[in-house]
Amino acid sequence: MTHATLINGAMAPDSTHAIDASDRGLNYGDGVFETMRMTRGRVRFWDLHAERLRTGCERLGIACPANATLQSDIEQLRQLQPDGVVKLVLTRGAGARGYRPLANGVPTRIATLHDLPTTITTKLRLRWCDMRLSRNPALAGIKHLNRLEHVLAQREWDDASIDEGLMLDSEGELVCATAANVFIVRGGELATADLRYCGVRGVMREAVLRTARNLGIPVHEEPLWPEDLETASEVFVTNAVRGIRSATSLDAHTWVNDEIARAISRALDTHA
Amino acid sequence: MTHATLINGAMAPDSTHAIDASDRGLNYGDGVFETMRMTRGRVRFWDLHAERLRTGCERLGIACPANATLQSDIEQLRQLQPDGVVKLVLTRGAGARGYRPLANGVPTRIATLHDLPTTITTKLRLRWCDMRLSRNPALAGIKHLNRLEHVLAQREWDDASIDEGLMLDSEGELVCATAANVFIVRGGELATADLRYCGVRGVMREAVLRTARNLGIPVHEEPLWPEDLETASEVFVTNAVRGIRSATSLDAHTWVNDEIARAISRALDTHA
Repeated sequence: MTHATLINGAMAPDSTHAIDASDRGLNYGDGVFETMRMTRGRVRFWDLHAERLRTGCERLGIACPANATLQSDIEQLRQLQPDGVVKLVLTRGAGARGYRPLANGVPTRIATLHDLPTTITTKLRLRWCDMRLSRNPALAGIKHLNRLEHVLAQREWDDASIDEGLMLDSEGELVCATAANVFIVRGGELATADLRYCGVRGVMREAVLRTARNLGIPVHEEPLWPEDLETASEVFVTNAVRGIRSATSLDAHTWVNDEIARAISRALDTHA
Repeated sequence: MTHATLINGAMAPDSTHAIDASDRGLNYGDGVFETMRMTRGRVRFWDLHAERLRTGCERLGIACPANATLQSDIEQLRQLQPDGVVKLVLTRGAGARGYRPLANGVPTRIATLHDLPTTITTKLRLRWCDMRLSRNPALAGIKHLNRLEHVLAQREWDDASIDEGLMLDSEGELVCATAANVFIVRGGELATADLRYCGVRGVMREAVLRTARNLGIPVHEEPLWPEDLETASEVFVTNAVRGIRSATSLDAHTWVNDEIARAISRALDTHA
């Protein structure tokens, strides 16, 4: 459920009639977003979220609002409810018809507050998605609004016992889950896809990489392939809202270990 | 300028506050669109537009409105002004947070009326775009709302003497212009990119292919490469709003012929 919608810092009296029909976010997916976990009034990993938002804006040529402006939106939502998911969408704003942005366009900022999802304490069952991710280094890593591939991937299953789907890119590299990054453990070392062609550089992915390094666990950002999952001793997925979740199976393949995931989770809970 | 905005068939009293902030078109580019030329109250190539919209909806799993519903939107706009551009955006509708569509989602239909663009009677000067199109056969051909690549391509130049930019895909194949399909003439025969991996199957592209066949001109839909432009005797681009436009140059390379483009234009004006 959505509890509040701020448009450019102002509470929308009616969120169902809030956005300009000419907004470029709607017409072209021309913008970026962040989905953040707020706990006891504090957005976890705010610095990492703000940094990725800024990187995305730079890449698309959208003027990124000042940090204080973004924090003021979050403060308004925090006053309504200290725990929840805060989503921030930033589009290139309303505009004329046609792909070319207006020279004097003003971005649209949409901040919404949602309930936290139910915590899943069991290990995850994974599946393969048929939908592939297309490769474009110019769009790789940032959390832009062109997300049809992820939407269509999630439409592929409605079996509630399956928690996530893994996605390959057009050349068969393992990139991510539909809404999470993927880590594998191999000989006590950690590896995750390098995302040079596609995929989102998740905030929890960055936090995990940083924490693993602090714990002295070697980490590798490199091309991964489906075979790497079979030889992994442990597999887990990460996202900013749901944290670190260990996987138990992918189709018929199973994993029993989760030591590394638990060690990193503990370190994160202690220090982040 | 936008003259009117219909949301699900009803005239929006205020188009700047017309769309639900949770609309999936805005959040994920989860939808399709058509941009059509209306002349003397008639949408040119309506059947082709309706067919592509239906194909796009099938591919994305969005319920396509009945033809009569779409035509009723157009009729409302026609009564305001008989000549203009009619744009139709169809999204998966408002929804919960997260990529997975609601089982009971209701699509959002946005129909807008805009002025016709100024007719360009001179031949087009083209440039190369740096931005590449990514490959995904599952999304190729349809006019979906994930259009960041086209937006960023058009942002690459602001020299008003350049009319269009040509785009390659990630492997270097020639796909299209930023807002048009591309045709080349070679030994009196016509060729255009087959769009098996990316690009939009333009309505004017289909009309040109059909008309060329009727005129006895051999047509080829096949992979094209930048070199094919240099060996072409004639190059033209097509889109539904601006029609057929011959190119005169691409950077330093020039073309002088436009016989085939003119023959097809004449035939289209006579029969379509």
